[in-house]
Amino acid sequence: MKRIEIFDSTLRDGAQGEGISFSVEDKLNITRLLDELGVSYIEAGNPGSNPKDLEFFRRAANMELKHAELVAFGSTRRKNIAVEEDKNVQALLTANTKTVALFGKSWDLHVRDILRTTDEENFAMISETVSFFKSRGKKVIFDAEHFFDGYKANPDFAMKALESAAVAGADILVLCDTNGGAFPQEIYDITKFVVERFNIAIGIHVHNDGGMAVANSIMAVEAGATHVQGTYLGFGERSGNANLSTIIPNLQLKKGYYCIPAEKMQLLTPIARNMAEIANVRLHRGEPYVGSSAFAHKAGMHADGVLKNSATFEHVPPESVGNERRMLMSEISGRNAVLYKISRFCPEITKDSPELNDIIDELKRMELEGYQYEGADASFELLVLKKLGKIKPFFELGYYRITGEKPYTTDYSAVATLKVHVGDQAQTAAGEGNGPVNALDKALRSALCGFYPTLSEFHLVDYKVRVMDSKQATAARVRVLITSTDGKSEWTTVGVSTDVIEASWLALSESMEYKLVRENVMPL
Amino acid sequence: MKRIEIFDSTLRDGAQGEGISFSVEDKLNITRLLDELGVSYIEAGNPGSNPKDLEFFRRAANMELKHAELVAFGSTRRKNIAVEEDKNVQALLTANTKTVALFGKSWDLHVRDILRTTDEENFAMISETVSFFKSRGKKVIFDAEHFFDGYKANPDFAMKALESAAVAGADILVLCDTNGGAFPQEIYDITKFVVERFNIAIGIHVHNDGGMAVANSIMAVEAGATHVQGTYLGFGERSGNANLSTIIPNLQLKKGYYCIPAEKMQLLTPIARNMAEIANVRLHRGEPYVGSSAFAHKAGMHADGVLKNSATFEHVPPESVGNERRMLMSEISGRNAVLYKISRFCPEITKDSPELNDIIDELKRMELEGYQYEGADASFELLVLKKLGKIKPFFELGYYRITGEKPYTTDYSAVATLKVHVGDQAQTAAGEGNGPVNALDKALRSALCGFYPTLSEFHLVDYKVRVMDSKQATAARVRVLITSTDGKSEWTTVGVSTDVIEASWLALSESMEYKLVRENVMPL
Repeated sequence: MKRIEIFDSTLRDGAQGEGISFSVEDKLNITRLLDELGVSYIEAGNPGSNPKDLEFFRRAANMELKHAELVAFGSTRRKNIAVEEDKNVQALLTANTKTVALFGKSWDLHVRDILRTTDEENFAMISETVSFFKSRGKKVIFDAEHFFDGYKANPDFAMKALESAAVAGADILVLCDTNGGAFPQEIYDITKFVVERFNIAIGIHVHNDGGMAVANSIMAVEAGATHVQGTYLGFGERSGNANLSTIIPNLQLKKGYYCIPAEKMQLLTPIARNMAEIANVRLHRGEPYVGSSAFAHKAGMHADGVLKNSATFEHVPPESVGNERRMLMSEISGRNAVLYKISRFCPEITKDSPELNDIIDELKRMELEGYQYEGADASFELLVLKKLGKIKPFFELGYYRITGEKPYTTDYSAVATLKVHVGDQAQTAAGEGNGPVNALDKALRSALCGFYPTLSEFHLVDYKVRVMDSKQATAARVRVLITSTDGKSEWTTVGVSTDVIEASWLALSESMEYKLVRENVMPL
Repeated sequence: MKRIEIFDSTLRDGAQGEGISFSVEDKLNITRLLDELGVSYIEAGNPGSNPKDLEFFRRAANMELKHAELVAFGSTRRKNIAVEEDKNVQALLTANTKTVALFGKSWDLHVRDILRTTDEENFAMISETVSFFKSRGKKVIFDAEHFFDGYKANPDFAMKALESAAVAGADILVLCDTNGGAFPQEIYDITKFVVERFNIAIGIHVHNDGGMAVANSIMAVEAGATHVQGTYLGFGERSGNANLSTIIPNLQLKKGYYCIPAEKMQLLTPIARNMAEIANVRLHRGEPYVGSSAFAHKAGMHADGVLKNSATFEHVPPESVGNERRMLMSEISGRNAVLYKISRFCPEITKDSPELNDIIDELKRMELEGYQYEGADASFELLVLKKLGKIKPFFELGYYRITGEKPYTTDYSAVATLKVHVGDQAQTAAGEGNGPVNALDKALRSALCGFYPTLSEFHLVDYKVRVMDSKQATAARVRVLITSTDGKSEWTTVGVSTDVIEASWLALSESMEYKLVRENVMPL
């Protein structure tokens, strides 16, 4: 089994993605995740360009990593200066990593238009900087920036850049498609040519501007590259970097390469969710292997097929990457998909149960109102259980009334008062909050906690607002999704209304109901 | 220049994507967009599985298409039945299109486990259905479902499936990677083998489960396929279909193929935005070529390089696909990027202007509060103009007060009252709405329209809420983005607060201010 080194640059190249900004704490958390996954290298920053990165390396020095090695990233020295006098080179040393990644120019256009120096000086910048770090005992990974564009424009020049690094002692030569526009076949051909020329390890680093970064990385590996650079979830500038959460399973599950320990493969999906959370971005639902839709079946025919033999419509088993199969409800999904979903909590319902039709009718009615249960399994379960008469209401709303003001005259900008009926009792309560939904949440908990103490054991972890018909702008219908956790599990509920407060109320009250159902609490 | 037929299945295979549900009106709008773009075929639905699709074909019959031809999609006949008696086959005729796309099985596993019939019956199903439609004068596109998996499992069987369609008169044989797990090299090799065997056009239809659908489509074209199926933006089940908005520019701008009229290339980005709007999904910002980040530069070095020579960090010019270059503001972006952005509306500010430092300090301060100007150019412009003392306030808030209730006692669930100061006058106003933000919007317009009548000429088109620190759930800080239009242009403003109402207020009031600045209205 051929071993491929996985070099993750989420913390460095990934941090250049639009909307991504990691704190030092975020970076330490991501380092732990990637080490747990078992990648070979974690490129964590550029101490020369960023004081935050310097602090990271200082704090990371105390971490005990099991699999991965930290790498600091920096440029070859500036032109017309001694390497020892280059501040960025010195900053790179202070990161105190065993391995450094150095980037240098391999496209003559860049030397002419950006560096504005001679070819000879460029090659000297590469070789002297590599020699400098080798003389300090470092392992050196040389990133040949723009290598493929450079090779196509001037192959001699591009090869000389690689040779300058190799002769100076670089341990790995990484071929970069920095502009991300290369094609799979040319990546294969050029990589193969380089692999045959050099006796040291060759790596690949590509961007996704042509939407082909995953395929291009794979083609380079097939051509003999043994080191793959990318970012988790493909974070990165413009259209992003090569996506390691896709490349790893492609290579390891289907092509027989070894990238990470086999038992870690099932961490791919949970780590993707965690990473998106830390980066504060929405995990793209269609993300190959790790997205919530990656194994979601909607068309009736596909859903039926997959229940007969999952290989008929799934390229790998979802469990192999820690993901799960989902059957979606919609006008084109069949009864089977609905049944599959119900069977997970009501195994007694079968294809021929008369209740199944009632449930499907109710689902259709709710979908017309704008509900979608695809992302809200807890609300789906409550809907089914109510339709089957298996649960009774735990509480009923009398009224709520909310005021929000600016400037505010109390300690908080919003105050909610409400009344709920629990059995034959009634409870009035109030809550102040940083906004109307926060105030409502506090008031409802306050009203219910005397009746159902278990409600103090959970809290909300995510709150999303989706505007459904955005052409209506502020009068549009909104769908609110609330995710809650009690430490053991997470559940998501949904509410729909033209009023964001009412939609939040609906999702909020179901999140409490679901917790009570889960704990087998009886309604009072 | 070799011609490639572009076959768009957004309305059929794309509609199977999670969260996608097109109304008949949506489908008609998308048909117009795709025809305007100049694709060859628009696969618009399956009249046999969906009455809505039947209605679409009835209404589309009156449309005058300039470039594209509508295609109806359906299955080969069911097993053990005469083709004339198959209801789905009959339904396909009622769509009344000149061309039909028929799918049949080419993987023996499916014939055994899903159809549960013999090989011979499967081939008869294919050839009889193709013959039937040829005898009715139709052009027939045969989609060999699961062809690549089928070929790898049993090449003889897979080739016989193609032969059954070819001998019966199919006009195009389409090789499908239905499970989406194939690799570029095998797509190339198998397609090449098929192209050399048959004397009719070969097409490619791949899914994106391995994250390689674009590359796989390109490899098939390089192997001789002349017909490419996919969906706009890659909509589709699981991880989606091959993305035509990436494939078209890859083939046409870089490989010299003809896919659509050259002058239509610049429609790729506007159509992507329009399509996302109709589908009610967020256009993935990193989407190659057409995403808002596709030509966005953040790292200081990249931003500087692109200003010196755009080819240094851009694979194609953004204008070539109707997109634009953006310079992002952030801790790692340089002064040059900020300057570039300011120069578009304040050309007199230069690198050495002392005001530039003030603006950058202010940006950093706002970023710490959670503001991001990456997506809110109007708020960025207002911030700069205010910092430069070029605009004075148009109005100032005295107070607002909002009540929301359920059940509601007036006609609306929310009522806002507010007071604004305009010059030395004050105006109190109220508004009722379907939610607190809608009520606030109405109240503010009502208060201001006597002073600034131009404010009646614009309306809000999008309202987005982003929860920033979702671990805080309902007490989290939210960022609200509001996009407005006056029919001539669109602008986006941003507001940040822990209170969704206050954040909305901030974005809302800036959207009005920006309109007034644009119209050169003087503050009263």
